[in-house]
Amino acid sequence: MNEIKAIIYGLGQMGRILARLSVEKGVIPVGAIDMNPAAAGKDLGELAGFGYPLNVKVSDNADEVLFQNEADIALIAVFAELDRSFPLFERCIENGVNVITTCDESLFPWTTSPETTARLDKLAKQHGVTIVGAGFQDTFLANQVILFSGASHTIEIINGYQSYNIDDYGPVVAEWHNLGETLDEFRKREQEEGTDLSYFIMSLETIAAGLGLTIKNISQRTEPVTSETELYCKSLDKKIPAGRTIGRTQITDIDTWQGIKLHGEEVSKVYMEGETDEVIWSIKGEPDTFLRNDRVATRFQTCTQMVNRIPDVINSEPGYVTVNELPMLRYRAYPLHFYVNERGRNP
Amino acid sequence: MNEIKAIIYGLGQMGRILARLSVEKGVIPVGAIDMNPAAAGKDLGELAGFGYPLNVKVSDNADEVLFQNEADIALIAVFAELDRSFPLFERCIENGVNVITTCDESLFPWTTSPETTARLDKLAKQHGVTIVGAGFQDTFLANQVILFSGASHTIEIINGYQSYNIDDYGPVVAEWHNLGETLDEFRKREQEEGTDLSYFIMSLETIAAGLGLTIKNISQRTEPVTSETELYCKSLDKKIPAGRTIGRTQITDIDTWQGIKLHGEEVSKVYMEGETDEVIWSIKGEPDTFLRNDRVATRFQTCTQMVNRIPDVINSEPGYVTVNELPMLRYRAYPLHFYVNERGRNP
Repeated sequence: MNEIKAIIYGLGQMGRILARLSVEKGVIPVGAIDMNPAAAGKDLGELAGFGYPLNVKVSDNADEVLFQNEADIALIAVFAELDRSFPLFERCIENGVNVITTCDESLFPWTTSPETTARLDKLAKQHGVTIVGAGFQDTFLANQVILFSGASHTIEIINGYQSYNIDDYGPVVAEWHNLGETLDEFRKREQEEGTDLSYFIMSLETIAAGLGLTIKNISQRTEPVTSETELYCKSLDKKIPAGRTIGRTQITDIDTWQGIKLHGEEVSKVYMEGETDEVIWSIKGEPDTFLRNDRVATRFQTCTQMVNRIPDVINSEPGYVTVNELPMLRYRAYPLHFYVNERGRNP
Repeated sequence: MNEIKAIIYGLGQMGRILARLSVEKGVIPVGAIDMNPAAAGKDLGELAGFGYPLNVKVSDNADEVLFQNEADIALIAVFAELDRSFPLFERCIENGVNVITTCDESLFPWTTSPETTARLDKLAKQHGVTIVGAGFQDTFLANQVILFSGASHTIEIINGYQSYNIDDYGPVVAEWHNLGETLDEFRKREQEEGTDLSYFIMSLETIAAGLGLTIKNISQRTEPVTSETELYCKSLDKKIPAGRTIGRTQITDIDTWQGIKLHGEEVSKVYMEGETDEVIWSIKGEPDTFLRNDRVATRFQTCTQMVNRIPDVINSEPGYVTVNELPMLRYRAYPLHFYVNERGRNP
């Protein structure tokens, strides 16, 4: 049983956490890739906060890193969209490296990007590797709901709610939310520019797939969130007046041919003092039933789940695999290579 | 793909719900067993509230029902303890019938009743059938915690809390709680009679097994619960004075050789107006993380989970199988026999 060898692809905030957590679970980092000149050339141990070198230099030459190393898996934390991620995924797969990624759309991209997903699926099968989009959604927005649904006799609608704090994600995310608009400005812009894709779609699609439901219709709309009092936005270092937008709610509705509905609300806003990330699920049916996670460490638990998933990805059959198809995620009490089975050991 | 044929064994409140839910999911009831003269001879459809006969008469002759029918599975809701349940389980297994049971101890009886469990395991393997203890604990007190632990990087302690209302379970359960004692009376009785086995032990052991942890020590104690105001107990039709016991908290602590601790608190008490059943889990570690189910339909969701589990039991390898070893439970959108695979079809 050999240790798992990994490449960390993308050394932003997520990649740095992924590097630390995976090394602490017995993974050997054999390569690190980042295009940012601020990261390239640095030692991974330094970037990941180990306080000692891991003797892996961050490189901006992905092909070289992938070709020179016999890695089992790449942990990719770069883009949120599948199309932008495609060249990175392709490069890893062609080098015989399994892929696990934070890319939000990758969780379940069969509807939003069917051609790209099919290409990746074929490529992965050709090279005998697996590609999985995982991270925060895996348990919190998908599998815990699939499991929890097992306590229902009938289901009319599955309702999901997630909130995150814009101020946790820096100025880029804050700018992109156009904070401080009037309600009219917000609605006008939404109408003119079209609404952003909500990644809750992928979560609800994963749940639907896990329950064997077929999708009839998906719709999405965005509503403004305002505050009754003036609110300070740390990321932009500015005060947002009362009544102006402090964020938005992206609302997704899915109808299935089986009659079961799925509804998701993803709230991203500047938090008031004391607010924390929450995930809330309820299922209306027989009986009505409720599940919630308070004080969620959204970003950190994106990484903890990714790392605990590594053995499942290595063990999986080749192809594009979604998290509803993997074994039940769980805590790894032992180094990750203890969980690699015969299929994972003999690719 | 043939319909699943089931025997309902025990037609108390649980058995009647199990009968209805399983029939509504396409199961064919081929037999019904109850020793109670009030049930024996009645039609299952009448007892289960269908309003029309199912043409299955409840019999008090278990051997006859089991021998005369080619059932796939028995749904057993009779006793809470494994030793008392053993003769019922044995009878089903010897007739080649898979068993799923509400019996609380059966969830994970390898520590509390190792010899009986090993006998059942061997017997089930001899007859090519599977026995599973399932029900409320399955998701709420075991598998959702195993899954949820996958969002943790390190774990110090897993804390569980469950509450139920004594008044939901009738006078037997209320009597058995010795409601209305002073704190001294409660403690004296606990000391003299010894404390009852808490079924939270089985839940915590299932979680430990699911995480691959080995148990070093299990301890259990019971604390009184009192009310600051007078409280009316419906089951006993009496008022409990302020300061007297309205229930108890059974506290279980498990240490593992891996250093991870498990702690469970099971509160059974007479509820005040507005209180509902709750399940709360928290994991202390990196990070601290939280999961809760409000307004739980404890008894009903015992049955919903049992019924949704039927295909997993039929599909499973033979032997004594605990719920941490089964596939992830989920809602069944289709009749249950659609989920039976090759192994289930060719026993």
